[in-house]
Amino acid sequence: MRAVDIIIKKKEGYELTKEEIHFIIDGFVKKEIPDYQVSALLMAICFQGLNEEEQFYLTKEMLESGEQVDLSSIDGICVDKHSTGGVGDKTSLVVAPIIASFGLKMAKMSGRGLGHTGGTLDKLESIPGFQISVSPSDFFKQVNDIGIAVVGQTANITPADKLLYSLRDVTGTVESIGLIASSIMSKKLASGAHTILLDVKVGDGAFMKTLDDARELAKAMVKIGNKFNRKVVAMLTDMDQPLGEAIGNSIEVIEAIETLKGNGPKDFTELCYNICSEILMVSNVCSDKKECYKLIDEKIKSHEALNKLKDMIIWQHGNSDVINDYSLFGSCKEVIEVKSIKEGYVKKIHTAKIGTSAMLLGAGRSTIKDVIDPVVGIKTLCKKGDYVKVGDTLALVYTNGKNTQESIDMIIDSYEVTKEVVKKNNIILDIIGE
Amino acid sequence: MRAVDIIIKKKEGYELTKEEIHFIIDGFVKKEIPDYQVSALLMAICFQGLNEEEQFYLTKEMLESGEQVDLSSIDGICVDKHSTGGVGDKTSLVVAPIIASFGLKMAKMSGRGLGHTGGTLDKLESIPGFQISVSPSDFFKQVNDIGIAVVGQTANITPADKLLYSLRDVTGTVESIGLIASSIMSKKLASGAHTILLDVKVGDGAFMKTLDDARELAKAMVKIGNKFNRKVVAMLTDMDQPLGEAIGNSIEVIEAIETLKGNGPKDFTELCYNICSEILMVSNVCSDKKECYKLIDEKIKSHEALNKLKDMIIWQHGNSDVINDYSLFGSCKEVIEVKSIKEGYVKKIHTAKIGTSAMLLGAGRSTIKDVIDPVVGIKTLCKKGDYVKVGDTLALVYTNGKNTQESIDMIIDSYEVTKEVVKKNNIILDIIGE
Repeated sequence: MRAVDIIIKKKEGYELTKEEIHFIIDGFVKKEIPDYQVSALLMAICFQGLNEEEQFYLTKEMLESGEQVDLSSIDGICVDKHSTGGVGDKTSLVVAPIIASFGLKMAKMSGRGLGHTGGTLDKLESIPGFQISVSPSDFFKQVNDIGIAVVGQTANITPADKLLYSLRDVTGTVESIGLIASSIMSKKLASGAHTILLDVKVGDGAFMKTLDDARELAKAMVKIGNKFNRKVVAMLTDMDQPLGEAIGNSIEVIEAIETLKGNGPKDFTELCYNICSEILMVSNVCSDKKECYKLIDEKIKSHEALNKLKDMIIWQHGNSDVINDYSLFGSCKEVIEVKSIKEGYVKKIHTAKIGTSAMLLGAGRSTIKDVIDPVVGIKTLCKKGDYVKVGDTLALVYTNGKNTQESIDMIIDSYEVTKEVVKKNNIILDIIGE
Repeated sequence: MRAVDIIIKKKEGYELTKEEIHFIIDGFVKKEIPDYQVSALLMAICFQGLNEEEQFYLTKEMLESGEQVDLSSIDGICVDKHSTGGVGDKTSLVVAPIIASFGLKMAKMSGRGLGHTGGTLDKLESIPGFQISVSPSDFFKQVNDIGIAVVGQTANITPADKLLYSLRDVTGTVESIGLIASSIMSKKLASGAHTILLDVKVGDGAFMKTLDDARELAKAMVKIGNKFNRKVVAMLTDMDQPLGEAIGNSIEVIEAIETLKGNGPKDFTELCYNICSEILMVSNVCSDKKECYKLIDEKIKSHEALNKLKDMIIWQHGNSDVINDYSLFGSCKEVIEVKSIKEGYVKKIHTAKIGTSAMLLGAGRSTIKDVIDPVVGIKTLCKKGDYVKVGDTLALVYTNGKNTQESIDMIIDSYEVTKEVVKKNNIILDIIGE
């Protein structure tokens, strides 16, 4: 078997066999196949795609290239939730405690990454004392005892995917449904959960810009998951505006706590309720959405869900007093109101630009070496469809002085207004899976 | 400027600027841009193509990456002829002497390469004593004196093309009209000729399998040449069967000599006359094809053309007695008749397979390290449209014992016959250019 023949085969649009996919991935990991051949193949895949079988075998190769987390020592149904990433996405911080309050197990291992804001791990680390490094035995004990843990990934899972992703990142071959689906699913499968909820973001602030692409990706991931005998539900959710209000780290944790207290922003609360409902239904906890909503409402009102977050903070050595005293997060030097210079209905919010603006303040990383400032960020007070007048506050900028004016200018620039009435967005666009 | 942005730009189908093409080629040659990025870009180019401007700038970058041969010390019009390569293609050995006999200058520098048979240099080296290594000053003196020289390329022309081609060869990115046109033309332009005749082979035994692809390539090359102020004519010629009879090295030289004596195979003679006519017309030696044919006939009958070949052999230290005594080439151990096992009209000759069969006997190189056996090869006696009976001789195999049976089997396999009458092929399919 020769790599060049496999490249040409894919270039000409033919299906690669299990053996050929193994030959490439195995050879690449072992450095027997040079990266210039793999990058050419990846580009051919971007044009010709991967069918279901190819995606399955690629996922399998990457999954089996490293360790796989064995969650069998945890009693009950282990649930994982994955988001393809959006601006202001603090969903896991609310969904995990709610789900745990129903007796399901959220054993979540996360990686870090680049982005507008930190990942879930960075957000949690804005809680004083919070530890994300937990030994496997403590992790299993915590999940069995309180049903919830969010920790850093320690196992060497899917090294082939890591290598492949590094190459895709610098060769313009990230954007391919088949490659994205295989990459995400290999990691999720390696993390061991029985039930996987995928939140596929769609829109300006997301990786998938169109509903069609997002739907295709969601379908691909559900199919891969099912082939590995996991229950998978994918939700397509709107990312044409920031999710909720807060975009940052400590301010997102505070918004999550407020949501668990029943005071969250409407759009974000709706998303969390929907995601939890899907998880509860696929796990046979309840059978219809109305019932789910009622039960979730009870978990919020009784503070059972909030207490799950509190328990997790305590188990992971954080100061759980933050739940009632937000000053313990520390504060930034200045909070600046960003005023509208136009009047009309908010027609469009350039969400990616808002995200970049938060990153410039220090809320996220543009390179892996960047250090996150946990207290800075943005609160977007106006949403699509809102009517704003000149001088109305569009957003609040939480800053320690880094790139403040640039960030403010970008926010103002991100808002498009119109004289015509604008319809509010639905946050749930589609649900795919069981 | 970042390579990854340029890759994504091309992936999405946009035109690259002069500056971007310079950035890539210059960076690649200087090893500042890694080959895995270049191979991804090459694959994106295979799918999205290169427009005229992009081809021009790519050619220019490759041309200017190395030395350019200055033919200004040669009096008169310097002509170059290039073939995209076919099975049994000994055209240069006939065209160059004819053209020189008209007072035009054939200053031809060739490279070696891989293929079914050796290149023109290897074929000439089958003449005892013939030297292809000639100093630049001797080369110019020879061309000025006798109007003809075919030597090995000594100048370091188009190193960027060499690097790029090596990468294309192992990454499945050879087959792209824009890349092929830029590669060929950068080399031809660097060789300095004023007038360039391109023989683009089409068919089973050629790089271009379809007339449409070949026409597109031909048009692209003519346009590039014209932008560099060269006169360029491209001919599309049939390669759905071997050219002439001989496929090998010394046996091809003998066939070329016979053709210069007026006894060449019909198809091959017709091709040579046509190519010479186009060169003569574009160089304003004569104005119509009929006149050209008449004048060429005279050069053949008078042995003026043959004597040009003889002069070249003498100047390049070969034994020119070979022209009248073919035994001086040496001979192979055995000549085997390959008999037809079927009866009917020859419908198709799998030309690439016949080429491979010659290579297996030792006539060509499959890797750069292979040593060519100058006396082995194949003579194909039956052509498309011929009627053959069981036991008729299809071909002769000239062998020294290497892979003889395999070669014979492949030849038999290459001939398809049918009961219906088959039309003979036209050798000239189209002419593009001035």
